[in-house]
Amino acid sequence: MSSPSGRVRMSPDSRREQLLELGVRLLSSRSLDELSIETLAEEAGISRGLLYHYFGNKQDFHRAVVRKAADDLIRVTAPVQEGEPIDRLARSLDAYVDYVSTNYAGYVSLVRGAASGNEDLQRIYEEARAVLTDRIFDVAGQDGVLDVFHLQDTPAVRLMVRGWSALAEDVVISWVRDDRGVSRADLLTMLAAALPGVLSGSP
Amino acid sequence: MSSPSGRVRMSPDSRREQLLELGVRLLSSRSLDELSIETLAEEAGISRGLLYHYFGNKQDFHRAVVRKAADDLIRVTAPVQEGEPIDRLARSLDAYVDYVSTNYAGYVSLVRGAASGNEDLQRIYEEARAVLTDRIFDVAGQDGVLDVFHLQDTPAVRLMVRGWSALAEDVVISWVRDDRGVSRADLLTMLAAALPGVLSGSP
Repeated sequence: MSSPSGRVRMSPDSRREQLLELGVRLLSSRSLDELSIETLAEEAGISRGLLYHYFGNKQDFHRAVVRKAADDLIRVTAPVQEGEPIDRLARSLDAYVDYVSTNYAGYVSLVRGAASGNEDLQRIYEEARAVLTDRIFDVAGQDGVLDVFHLQDTPAVRLMVRGWSALAEDVVISWVRDDRGVSRADLLTMLAAALPGVLSGSP
Repeated sequence: MSSPSGRVRMSPDSRREQLLELGVRLLSSRSLDELSIETLAEEAGISRGLLYHYFGNKQDFHRAVVRKAADDLIRVTAPVQEGEPIDRLARSLDAYVDYVSTNYAGYVSLVRGAASGNEDLQRIYEEARAVLTDRIFDVAGQDGVLDVFHLQDTPAVRLMVRGWSALAEDVVISWVRDDRGVSRADLLTMLAAALPGVLSGSP
């Protein structure tokens, strides 16, 4: 990737992408508020001016980093195509726990940014969450999770599946912060079992 | 309460309490950010100066209003002492849905304030949530909810009960915003059934 002089020569798009990756990586140990253009410039070894050239202003920069983090989350937790629905769910959950463990500060700040008044971050978070939740339904009709539990795709079921994803988010964040002796295997088993569990009272 | 002149004569503590009640009431239709000392002064028909006398500054005022809202929530959802554990849970959930319906804007802003970087609001929210969650365990040993489902009070069970409360919060907020035809009775049944449901995979 590097030329002999140590300088990286790449297209502006690739360069921007590389800077975003660095931004997301920096979020693993600091919150979005603590991620300034100055910090990124310093870590990337380039001028602040050049960063402003790529990202416009701090708001645009934060939006781009959060968008990238959300895309990463969606990508790494993408369900595999083979296997039983429950196994596919368990593997997605496994990847989700990995993601939150590795990117704790950034992930919590994604959730907090969404809960704060910032409408842009809120929209990115809601979109990402909709993608993650809709997966439960997308596989319906092809031996998906809903079929296994003999459930229809109704507003009530959607409401509870959305609730289950709020549960998973809360439980995984709490567990990464302090596992209190709960093993990762038990965590994953409980989260997977909780999906049919929360749907058991659906009309 | 009022004297013939229309002025209210009461002790400073009672007056402060009355102003807080007004503050919480104003939160039913606006967020915490939108609740300024000026708004409260106007609604209460007193001077800003007097309000600053009672509450110090805007941060202290917001903290006091959020504390009052959290206390109200804890009080109105207090479980009744009689009845089967599941009925007691259902009645608490019923009161919780009422509370969120009546105080929608303020409740969402309590949740958002907690998720934001404001440490004071975060602590108040976490304390309120701990009280609400601990109730599930407090009744253990006396025909409580855990006994009914033959569960021990373990870190894994605590983690999932906390997750269930995140689910309930998310589901009730979504439902109040747009019920999509889901009846209140179905909502309450699903939320109550979800508690044993999320615990079904506990080790």
